[in-house]
Amino acid sequence: MAKVAVIGAGSWGTALSLVLADNGHDVLLYGREEEHVHEINTAHTNSTYLKDAPLPTSIRATTNMAEAVAGRSIVFLVVPSSAIRPVSRELNTILTEPAVLVHAAKGIEPKTHKRLSEIIAEEVDPAKRRAIGVLTGPTHAEEVAVRKLTTITIACEDLDVADEIQELLTNDQFRVYLNSDVIGAEYGGALKNIIALAAGMTDGLGYGDNAKAALMTRGIVEIARLGVKLGANPASFSGLTGIGDLIVTATSQHSRNWRAGNAIGRGEKLEDVLGHMGMVVEGVRACEAAHTLAREAGVEMPITEALYNVLFEGKSPHDEVQKLMRRPQKHEMEEVFHFEGGEEQRD
Amino acid sequence: MAKVAVIGAGSWGTALSLVLADNGHDVLLYGREEEHVHEINTAHTNSTYLKDAPLPTSIRATTNMAEAVAGRSIVFLVVPSSAIRPVSRELNTILTEPAVLVHAAKGIEPKTHKRLSEIIAEEVDPAKRRAIGVLTGPTHAEEVAVRKLTTITIACEDLDVADEIQELLTNDQFRVYLNSDVIGAEYGGALKNIIALAAGMTDGLGYGDNAKAALMTRGIVEIARLGVKLGANPASFSGLTGIGDLIVTATSQHSRNWRAGNAIGRGEKLEDVLGHMGMVVEGVRACEAAHTLAREAGVEMPITEALYNVLFEGKSPHDEVQKLMRRPQKHEMEEVFHFEGGEEQRD
Repeated sequence: MAKVAVIGAGSWGTALSLVLADNGHDVLLYGREEEHVHEINTAHTNSTYLKDAPLPTSIRATTNMAEAVAGRSIVFLVVPSSAIRPVSRELNTILTEPAVLVHAAKGIEPKTHKRLSEIIAEEVDPAKRRAIGVLTGPTHAEEVAVRKLTTITIACEDLDVADEIQELLTNDQFRVYLNSDVIGAEYGGALKNIIALAAGMTDGLGYGDNAKAALMTRGIVEIARLGVKLGANPASFSGLTGIGDLIVTATSQHSRNWRAGNAIGRGEKLEDVLGHMGMVVEGVRACEAAHTLAREAGVEMPITEALYNVLFEGKSPHDEVQKLMRRPQKHEMEEVFHFEGGEEQRD
Repeated sequence: MAKVAVIGAGSWGTALSLVLADNGHDVLLYGREEEHVHEINTAHTNSTYLKDAPLPTSIRATTNMAEAVAGRSIVFLVVPSSAIRPVSRELNTILTEPAVLVHAAKGIEPKTHKRLSEIIAEEVDPAKRRAIGVLTGPTHAEEVAVRKLTTITIACEDLDVADEIQELLTNDQFRVYLNSDVIGAEYGGALKNIIALAAGMTDGLGYGDNAKAALMTRGIVEIARLGVKLGANPASFSGLTGIGDLIVTATSQHSRNWRAGNAIGRGEKLEDVLGHMGMVVEGVRACEAAHTLAREAGVEMPITEALYNVLFEGKSPHDEVQKLMRRPQKHEMEEVFHFEGGEEQRD
């Protein structure tokens, strides 16, 4: 039995706590809102984020982050990408022993365009962390909460730590794969939200499954192209952290990114859409970052460009999608990247 | 304006005829059944296969194959894979001038395990054919019939012929890409049906989107592994003819393969399922062929193996999927294949 802290009591933080509790670990879950924390501790549900799913009674929740991490050497950061920096900063003031820090967010920081593990490394003193990992893959929290079979990847440069995390989380319904490519795992998770948003937009515009399959096919090629240029292992984009995550995000109406894109495609205004969804549409932030990164790196990303024009330049979704779908693709044969079977599992 | 014959008045043959007619070509469509042919000629619909979609009145249909191909130098074979050999044999007795033969079927011949272009090459005398091509990709006929934007690949060793076919078919809604890798295009189209069937089965068993995304991710890796061993260009599996086609087939309830798998997953008997669907479930035939090909080639295909056990060995879908999802994947890092951006478009 390990003592584990989970920071973030949204749907995914709660679902991960459930997996850890199922495996017999001592889980303390940090949430910002008193109301949710109280509900988790007393009713053993988190109705705002996970509807009626009954939670193991062994999960305890707190609004006190210092209490959450005290005496716990493994900390999962399960917050929106925008909260990674402030949470890391707070952890740095709280942690007394070096901890393994595993984040499960999917995004790129605006302006700095840093990956989330880079932000954690900046904010948390090396003496206070043993390793930084990322937990990512095709995982709807709603399904994990009802123990539907799910696969996921733990990426960490230190494969021994990845091994520990795998052992901690694996059970019959929750299968954890290893990957040493943190860069690829993070870019896959963050950038696939752009393609999911674009797929939602084409769905909202009334395009069909044929067009969407084409968009997803081109989309994974385009994000891999950027990721590889920025140091990722191409294999990560053909694995769970790439195409796997894209499939689950772009083809499910549970996905916030897909839903935001869909609303935009149906003609809703961007401000209204983001207003509804409380700004946590990771694909919007990722699109801005990828647009700049691609220009700096000299990488062509036509889908990202089209979405950028809609989100930030006030262009019409219809016109941008038309332009996108009808561009000549002559040059795509030249841009070769290698795509391999990605993760590895140790049982 | 070209004079074109389309052999096969099912949903896809009819939809392709519509694209050709939209582009101003003279299309003669061969169908076996008097009733459908009569309906196409008089009511300009094909209600059995394409519901209410109104067809261009310029499309003419016939039950006489000799009449269909007379004086036409381009012939599309749009029949189930099991009909490719008998139709090719018949064409060989009918054709008087060398024609371009483009098939749009997705399968592998049982017993011989030949690709469909190989069968055409065997059955049609070289003097009676100018080239053999394959038209494949993520294309629901129902969407093409209502002019929803669709992308597709024409694969032909002779890229000048591929160019001709591209020019013939391309319009604003129907975007045609080129590929010289006939082997990869054919294996992609045929083998993805195995994964779509398996995805239908897991859906029928009540697994969720997380498990399905994992299955599809592993699936494309496994079929690419076999295809590459048999001479395909790995790029074809990362393009429209591979992952694109898999996405559209495995995530749509229109797909016959998905529906067959789904029924099996829900506990229906294989004989009943195939009875309902008139045996044209290409994934069943492809599974048997791939199972043997994989064994001969020494390639591991765990999903194909699991499906084979259900379809041909009477094993329980539930047990096989459990076994599949829980197998260790240690070795997958070792089997590297290269995955590139696939097709090229010339406008």
